[in-house]
Amino acid sequence: MRNLKLLLTYDGSRYRGWQRLKGTDNTIQGKLETALTRILDEPVELIASGRTDAGVHALGQVANFHCQSSMDCREILSELRRYLPGDIGVLSCEEASARFHARYNARRKTYLYRVWNSSAPCVFIRGQVYRLETPLNIDAMKEAAAHFLGTHDFRAFCTGKGSGKSTVRTIDALTVTRQGQEVQIRIRADGFLYNMVRIITGTLLEVGMADHPLTAGDIPGILETQTRSYAGYTVPAQGLTLVEVEY
Amino acid sequence: MRNLKLLLTYDGSRYRGWQRLKGTDNTIQGKLETALTRILDEPVELIASGRTDAGVHALGQVANFHCQSSMDCREILSELRRYLPGDIGVLSCEEASARFHARYNARRKTYLYRVWNSSAPCVFIRGQVYRLETPLNIDAMKEAAAHFLGTHDFRAFCTGKGSGKSTVRTIDALTVTRQGQEVQIRIRADGFLYNMVRIITGTLLEVGMADHPLTAGDIPGILETQTRSYAGYTVPAQGLTLVEVEY
Repeated sequence: MRNLKLLLTYDGSRYRGWQRLKGTDNTIQGKLETALTRILDEPVELIASGRTDAGVHALGQVANFHCQSSMDCREILSELRRYLPGDIGVLSCEEASARFHARYNARRKTYLYRVWNSSAPCVFIRGQVYRLETPLNIDAMKEAAAHFLGTHDFRAFCTGKGSGKSTVRTIDALTVTRQGQEVQIRIRADGFLYNMVRIITGTLLEVGMADHPLTAGDIPGILETQTRSYAGYTVPAQGLTLVEVEY
Repeated sequence: MRNLKLLLTYDGSRYRGWQRLKGTDNTIQGKLETALTRILDEPVELIASGRTDAGVHALGQVANFHCQSSMDCREILSELRRYLPGDIGVLSCEEASARFHARYNARRKTYLYRVWNSSAPCVFIRGQVYRLETPLNIDAMKEAAAHFLGTHDFRAFCTGKGSGKSTVRTIDALTVTRQGQEVQIRIRADGFLYNMVRIITGTLLEVGMADHPLTAGDIPGILETQTRSYAGYTVPAQGLTLVEVEY
């Protein structure tokens, strides 16, 4: 069996997320598996670095799959590009080692969250940003961001019942930058809990809002409580992009 | 009567063009007039610098309209932003002199045509570029572009029966640049004939294609023939953006 690795980009706007769902083919995984199964003439199952939610985008999602076909990687790539809809793109297709597993072997991931912080129109990128007109104090957000760096239990910054699995993660980069009317939050970690980027972003935004009581100094305390309700809101999926997966 | 001037940006993908059409409200003009009529509680008719075709975008379209309402420009702007769909944006709304006419007073316009010249995916800007995988010789295209500069009869580079109106125009800037996988053609003139940007672009692309017989040296001769069939093909609307109108 060959093991092939795909580097993918997609505009998640139209899709119900990465994961294949029964009763709809409107998922990224579904579209890709259907195309691959047709091209290779054998059933294909994709393993992604992680499942992106409905509306979340990717610049560099990684997935692998096993197959018996002897079709050349370049031919698979060009066939995929012919079959896939315009909002799912394959950047590369290459042979991986037999043991490569896109999820288990992921060492680090980088996400970008884009906020359109203006009442001005943003027609061309409207599907990739979260519109928020409230003025933001970027310095306060940067100060808050620093408290997330390092290894912490992020239980307060995730959604879910806590299945007993570890909620400890290590964030090694978290930047907040303003470029004109857009505020970008970029976060890199060894792994992410469910909704972790969106809740950390919501918390940073609350710190940045003048009329919100949350301040940068509150972050360590919230981490300690391990209680979701003390953290900020979950920002919408459409502003989120999976940028890179490192192995 | 007041005369108000709007600076507009729009993603033309979903629309049947600028001009209001009977039997559909799916035009840019239609959406704006409906919103303005509702906000100002009086019938409003917009005059644009020119009609953009179905699928054509704008970064800086200009339109004016007359009204009797005494509503503040800032309030009109914020109401418009509330009413309009996300793919039509109003950049500004200001008082204009009584005689200002967005079409008659336009001195110069700039258009941008974007070509995605690669087999690689371009998922996020797919609605704003024309995909063309054929390799392009940019130097040849630049040489051809130089022949269009100045005042010429552009009858060969427009669509239409020729209603007797002048087809002489002056192009004062025409640049061809490559930025990574994208080739951009930017053209500024005192006015444009129907499909003129798209036919000039198609001609430049044919000059850039190695296996196409058209060369830069052929341009002066085509201008002279004043015959549409000697010029290049009309590239698709979706790659075209009206960038700026000068008064």
